[in-house]
Amino acid sequence: MERPRHQGMAKNTYMRWRLPLVCLLWEVAMIVLFGVFVRFGPEADAHWEEEKRELNLTSDMENDFYFRYPSFQDVHVMIFVGFGFLMTFLKRYGFGAVGFNFLLAAFGIQWALLMQGWFHSFKNGKILIGVENLINADFCVGSVCIAFGAILGKTSPIQLLVMTLFQVTLFSVNEYILLNLLHVKDAGGSMTIHTFGAYFGLTVTRILYRPNLEQSKDKQGSVYHSDLFAMIGTLYLWMYWPSFNSAISEHGDAQHRSAINTYCSLAACVLTTMAFSSMLQKKGKLDMVHIQNATLAGGVAVGTSAEMMLTPYGSLIVGSISGIVSTVGYVYFTPFLESRLHIQDTCGIHNLHAMPGLIGGIVGAITAAAATEDVYGKEGFIKAFDFTGVYQTRTPSVQGGFQAAGIVVSLLMAFVGGAIVGGILKLPIWGDAAAENCFEDEVYWEVPEDEESDVYHMHNPDKPASP
Amino acid sequence: MERPRHQGMAKNTYMRWRLPLVCLLWEVAMIVLFGVFVRFGPEADAHWEEEKRELNLTSDMENDFYFRYPSFQDVHVMIFVGFGFLMTFLKRYGFGAVGFNFLLAAFGIQWALLMQGWFHSFKNGKILIGVENLINADFCVGSVCIAFGAILGKTSPIQLLVMTLFQVTLFSVNEYILLNLLHVKDAGGSMTIHTFGAYFGLTVTRILYRPNLEQSKDKQGSVYHSDLFAMIGTLYLWMYWPSFNSAISEHGDAQHRSAINTYCSLAACVLTTMAFSSMLQKKGKLDMVHIQNATLAGGVAVGTSAEMMLTPYGSLIVGSISGIVSTVGYVYFTPFLESRLHIQDTCGIHNLHAMPGLIGGIVGAITAAAATEDVYGKEGFIKAFDFTGVYQTRTPSVQGGFQAAGIVVSLLMAFVGGAIVGGILKLPIWGDAAAENCFEDEVYWEVPEDEESDVYHMHNPDKPASP
Amino acid sequence: MERPRHQGMAKNTYMRWRLPLVCLLWEVAMIVLFGVFVRFGPEADAHWEEEKRELNLTSDMENDFYFRYPSFQDVHVMIFVGFGFLMTFLKRYGFGAVGFNFLLAAFGIQWALLMQGWFHSFKNGKILIGVENLINADFCVGSVCIAFGAILGKTSPIQLLVMTLFQVTLFSVNEYILLNLLHVKDAGGSMTIHTFGAYFGLTVTRILYRPNLEQSKDKQGSVYHSDLFAMIGTLYLWMYWPSFNSAISEHGDAQHRSAINTYCSLAACVLTTMAFSSMLQKKGKLDMVHIQNATLAGGVAVGTSAEMMLTPYGSLIVGSISGIVSTVGYVYFTPFLESRLHIQDTCGIHNLHAMPGLIGGIVGAITAAAATEDVYGKEGFIKAFDFTGVYQTRTPSVQGGFQAAGIVVSLLMAFVGGAIVGGILKLPIWGDAAAENCFEDEVYWEVPEDEESDVYHMHNPDKPASP
Repeated sequence: MERPRHQGMAKNTYMRWRLPLVCLLWEVAMIVLFGVFVRFGPEADAHWEEEKRELNLTSDMENDFYFRYPSFQDVHVMIFVGFGFLMTFLKRYGFGAVGFNFLLAAFGIQWALLMQGWFHSFKNGKILIGVENLINADFCVGSVCIAFGAILGKTSPIQLLVMTLFQVTLFSVNEYILLNLLHVKDAGGSMTIHTFGAYFGLTVTRILYRPNLEQSKDKQGSVYHSDLFAMIGTLYLWMYWPSFNSAISEHGDAQHRSAINTYCSLAACVLTTMAFSSMLQKKGKLDMVHIQNATLAGGVAVGTSAEMMLTPYGSLIVGSISGIVSTVGYVYFTPFLESRLHIQDTCGIHNLHAMPGLIGGIVGAITAAAATEDVYGKEGFIKAFDFTGVYQTRTPSVQGGFQAAGIVVSLLMAFVGGAIVGGILKLPIWGDAAAENCFEDEVYWEVPEDEESDVYHMHNPDKPASP
Repeated sequence: MERPRHQGMAKNTYMRWRLPLVCLLWEVAMIVLFGVFVRFGPEADAHWEEEKRELNLTSDMENDFYFRYPSFQDVHVMIFVGFGFLMTFLKRYGFGAVGFNFLLAAFGIQWALLMQGWFHSFKNGKILIGVENLINADFCVGSVCIAFGAILGKTSPIQLLVMTLFQVTLFSVNEYILLNLLHVKDAGGSMTIHTFGAYFGLTVTRILYRPNLEQSKDKQGSVYHSDLFAMIGTLYLWMYWPSFNSAISEHGDAQHRSAINTYCSLAACVLTTMAFSSMLQKKGKLDMVHIQNATLAGGVAVGTSAEMMLTPYGSLIVGSISGIVSTVGYVYFTPFLESRLHIQDTCGIHNLHAMPGLIGGIVGAITAAAATEDVYGKEGFIKAFDFTGVYQTRTPSVQGGFQAAGIVVSLLMAFVGGAIVGGILKLPIWGDAAAENCFEDEVYWEVPEDEESDVYHMHNPDKPASP
Repeated sequence: MERPRHQGMAKNTYMRWRLPLVCLLWEVAMIVLFGVFVRFGPEADAHWEEEKRELNLTSDMENDFYFRYPSFQDVHVMIFVGFGFLMTFLKRYGFGAVGFNFLLAAFGIQWALLMQGWFHSFKNGKILIGVENLINADFCVGSVCIAFGAILGKTSPIQLLVMTLFQVTLFSVNEYILLNLLHVKDAGGSMTIHTFGAYFGLTVTRILYRPNLEQSKDKQGSVYHSDLFAMIGTLYLWMYWPSFNSAISEHGDAQHRSAINTYCSLAACVLTTMAFSSMLQKKGKLDMVHIQNATLAGGVAVGTSAEMMLTPYGSLIVGSISGIVSTVGYVYFTPFLESRLHIQDTCGIHNLHAMPGLIGGIVGAITAAAATEDVYGKEGFIKAFDFTGVYQTRTPSVQGGFQAAGIVVSLLMAFVGGAIVGGILKLPIWGDAAAENCFEDEVYWEVPEDEESDVYHMHNPDKPASP
C-alpha cells in the first residue's frame, strides 16, 4: 500500500551538520570555561593531607566523598538509566528516549557544574568542585529530563540541547533564589527540580503544540517488551529515590531520616496507585502507564520534607495521597490538558512531577511551619533549618511562609522561562520532525531493518515491504 | 479459529472493587499503626547531636547509616529488580512478574517494619527504626518473593497480598524464635528467608494444586527476549548477594568476611551449574533456566555461614555443591514434584531456595560447631557468636545444635503456616484465573495490542484476529 | 525453502562432555589451590579486634571495607551487567553474550584472586585477601571481557575458558611488571586492563581469522530490542566508570579526584561521539553502535591519569578526543582492519579499548611527567606517585618515561601472549562453530521456539518451518 506523502514530510530533519556543530562548539566552550574556572575542591585536591591537618581530621573517612559517593552513584543511575529507560515505553522511540536523554544529560551536567558552581562554589575566581557538586549537577539535569518527558518524541536532538542550555541556566537562578535568598530547604528538590522542571516542560510543550499529532497516534503506544524496558527505569527510580532525597542532606541524622521517609512514602504510593489504577479502569485491569509512573509520585512528594521530622507515618500519608493524585491525573487530567489546554504531555509529567511536586512543596512548608524545638531538640532544630547567622531569629512559621514563597517563585520561573524557551524552540531551524513522524526513531537514528519490526518501518518506496 | 469456551472461563477475575478495597484499607491500617507505633531511631532522629555527645562519638560517620546504607540499596535492588525481573522469563507474564512483585513487596515492607519492629525494636511503646530495620524489612519480603516464585502466574494480586500479610507475620515469629529464643546466627537468612520462604511457598502451591494446568502449558515457556529480561534479575541477584549476606552482620570484619565468602561461593556455583546444565542435556546445550537460577544457589547456601570463618575455599566447596544440587533439581526433582507430589513450582524455588537453603542451614550448623578460639581469636569468638550474657557459657557444639534446631523450626513453621495460608487462598473469593488463563498478563493487566504479540492474545470474539 | 547443508556444518560443537569436564576439573583445582593458599586478610579475619588495637584504630569505619565496598559493587556490576549486556546487541547471540561472559568472569575472578594474590598479597605462604583483592580480580577479568568482545560469537565456551586461564595469567605478570618493577601508576587500568586486554584480544581474533565469516553476515546485526538491551550495558559501564577508575586509588583525595575526572571525561565524550556519529553518516543519522561504545572511550582514556591532578578541564579534553577517535575508528578503522589485516573484531574493541587505552597510557605519562610539587603539595606529590623508599629520588619526568615504558610492555605482552593463546585456541579440539553458525545462540544453548523468532531459527529439517 502506498502511503500518500504528507506535506509535513517536507520538514528538514537532516542533522548532519547542525548537530555536530552544536555538540562540538558547545563542548569547546565547556573546555574553555572549565579551563578558566573549574578546579578541584579541597577534598579532591592533592593538598588534602595539609587540609586534613588544618581541619584536625584524623581519618580519610571524613572526606565528604565517603559520606556522599554511594548516594551520588544512585542518583547518577536515576538520571541515566532511570529517566532514560522510563521513557522507552514507546514502541518505536526507545533509541531516542535512552539516547537523547544520554546526550542532554551529558551536556547538562557540564553546564550545571559551571552555573551552580558560580552561584555556590565560587572562591577566589575559581569554582571548587567535589562530589556534592556532581550530585547537584545531576539534580539540575534531572529537571531537564523531566521536561524532556513532556516533549518526548516531538523534538530534535538540537532542540533538546538548546532547551538544556536554557533550562539549566534558569534552574540555577531559581535554585539560587530559593536556597540563598529565601533560605528555603529543598534537599530532594520538590520545588527546584520537580515543580520547576515539570511546569517548565509543560509550558514548552504548550508553545510547541502540534495540532496534527494524531497522525502519529499509532506510534504513541507501547508494545509488550517496551513496557518491560520502561519498568527498568521505573524500578531504578523507585529504589534509589531514598538516595536522591538524602544525597545532599546534612551528614548523619538528616541523611538517615531522609532515606527512611522516602522509603516509607514510596511504599505507600505503590498501593494507592495500584488501587486507583484498577478502580478507574472499566474492567478493573491494571494499567502499566500508572504503575510505571504514579508509583514514583511518593518520592517527589517528600522531596522537600524528607529530611525534616516528617515521621514515617507522615510519609505514608503523603505517599498515599500522591499516588492517588497522580493516577487520577493520568486518567482524567492528561486527556483534559491535551484536548482543552493543548498541552501534549507525552509521559504525563504533569501527573508524576508537577502535581506531586506542588504537594511536596506544600508538605515541606507545613512540616517546616510545624517544627518545634521539642520535636527536633534545641541543636537539631537549628541544624535542620540552618537557623544561624542572619536567620538566627527566623521562626518555623516564617520559614513555612518562605517555603511557600519558594513554590510560587519556582512556578513563575517555570512559566516565564518555559514560554521564552518554547518560543525559541519554535523557530523553524532546529530540525524537528513532521507530525506524522513523531515518536519514530527512524528520523534521527539508523534503525536495524529486521523482520520483527518491519511492520513499523516508515514507508520507503525504494524498499520492498516484504523480502 | 474459534476456541471453545472452557468452563473455567467462568471464574471471576474482575478486580475492580476487590483489589482497590484491599489496597486502600490495608494502607490505611498501615498509616494508623505507623502513627501509633513507629518513630525514628536515635540515629535518624533530629536529636542525634545530643545522642552523639552521650555516646561520645566524634564523627557523623559513626552513624549506622554509613555502615549499612550501600548494602541496603543493593538489597533493595535485589528485592525489586532482582526478584521482579528474574520472574519475567515467562513469555506473557512479564507485567505480572514485575508488577505483582512490586505490589506485594511494597506492602510487605510496611507490614514487616511493624512486625519485626514489635519483636526487635520496641522501646517504651514505640518502634524505633533506622537503616537496619529497612534492610530487615526487605529481607522479610524477600521470603515472600521466593514463595511468589512457586505460584507465579497462578494467583490473583489479592491472593498475593493476603499471602504477604500472613507470611510476613509468620516470618517474623519464626525469626524471633530463631534469633532470640534459640540464639541462632543467620545473617544472610539461609533458614529464616530461604528455607522458610521456599517451603512455605511450596506448601501453598501444593494446596493450590491445579489439575488442569497443562491447559496453559504453551504459556509456561519463555521467548528469546523474556529470557534476557530474566538475566537482568539473575545478574543483579548474583552481583549484590555479597551485600545481602553481609548487610546486617556486625560492623568491621564480619561484614567484610561475609562479602568475601559470598563472592567466592557464587563464583564457584556458576561453573558447576554450567557443567551440569550441559551434562544433563542430551545435546550438551546450556539451558537458560539453569543459568538464570542455579547460579544463585551459592549465595543461598552460605547465607548462614558467610559471616563465620567459613574461609574462601570452604565457600568454593559450598558454592560448587549447591550449583550441582540446584541444577540436578531442575532436571529431575521439579518434574517429579509436579507429577508425583502435585507441587507445581513455576520458578523452581525448590531448586534455588529450598534445597540450597537447607544446605545453608546445615553448613551454618557445622561451621558454628567447628568454631574454635584459635581460629576466631578470643574476642572474635565471643563477638562472632555473641556468646555474652546468658549465652556466655554456650559452646560451639551446642551452638551447632541450636543452629540445626533452627532449620527444623523453620521447616515446621513453613509447612504448618503454608498449609493454613494455602487453605485460606483456596477460598473462591480472591479472583484467581482459570487454568487455561494462567501465565497470562491479560487477565489482570491492560496489555498493548501490538502486531508483534498478536499471536499471544487470548481469544476475544469481539476483536478481529487480524486487522 | 531448503537451505543447503554447508560443509562447515560438520564441525563438532557438541559440548556435553568437554564443557562439564573443563568446568569441574578447573573448579576442583580452584578449591585445592584456595585451600592451600587463600586466607582472609586481617581486615576480614575474626582477629580484627586485636588488629584494630594494634593499629590504634578507634572505629570499625577504618576497615578498608567501608572505603572500597561501594566502588567494588559498582565495578562488579560493570563486569557482569556492563560487559555482559553491552554485547547483547547481536540479534541472536544474547544468551551467549550474557551467559559466556558470566561463565568466563566467574572462573576468571577465582584464578585472578590466586594469580594476583601470589604477586601482591602473599605473606608467610598464604594469600591474604580483602575487598581490594576482589576489586583487582574483577579488574583482571575486565581485560578478558574486553578480549571476548573481539571474538564474540565465533568461539566455544571452552575456548573462552582456555583464553581466560591464559589471559588472567599473563595479565597478572604484566601487572606485576608495571606496578612493581616499573613502579608505574595505573589505577584505572588504561594500560594493564584496556591496552593489554584489547591488543591481546585483537591478536587472538587475528589468529582465529575466519575467511568465510560473511556466511553469517545476516546474524552480525542487531534488532531493535537487542540494541536497547545493549544500552543497559553501556549505561552501567558509563555511570559506574568513576567508581572503576577510583576503586583502588588511595583513600581520600585520590579516590575523590579520580571519580571527578572520570565523570568529566565521560560527559565530554558523549557529545563528541554524538557529533561524529552524525557527521560521518551520509544522512546525518546517529548510529547505535557508536552510542553504545564510543561514549565509553572517555572512561578508558583517563584510566591512568584520573587519580592524578589531570584537572576537570584536562578530563574534558581527553574525553572529547577519545570520543572522536573511537567513533572515527568504528567508521573507518574497523572495516580496514577486517578487510586488510584480517582482524575480525565483533564489538570493535579496537575503537573502544585499544586506541583509548593507548591514549590513556600516553595521557598518564604526560600528566605524570608534568607533575610539580607546587600543584600537588609536598606531601601530596610523594603520596600521589608513591615516591618513597627506593623511588624517593625519582623525578616526574623519569616517572613519565617509566609510564611510557609501561605502554610498550603491555603491548608486547599482548601481542606475544595473544599470538600464543590464539595458536592454542586454533587447535581443532575446542568445539567452535562453523562460519555459517557464528553469532547464533542455538549452537550452544537451548533456545525457546517461539513464533516471534521463528524466522531466525537455524534450519532444522525435522521441524516444519511454519506451524
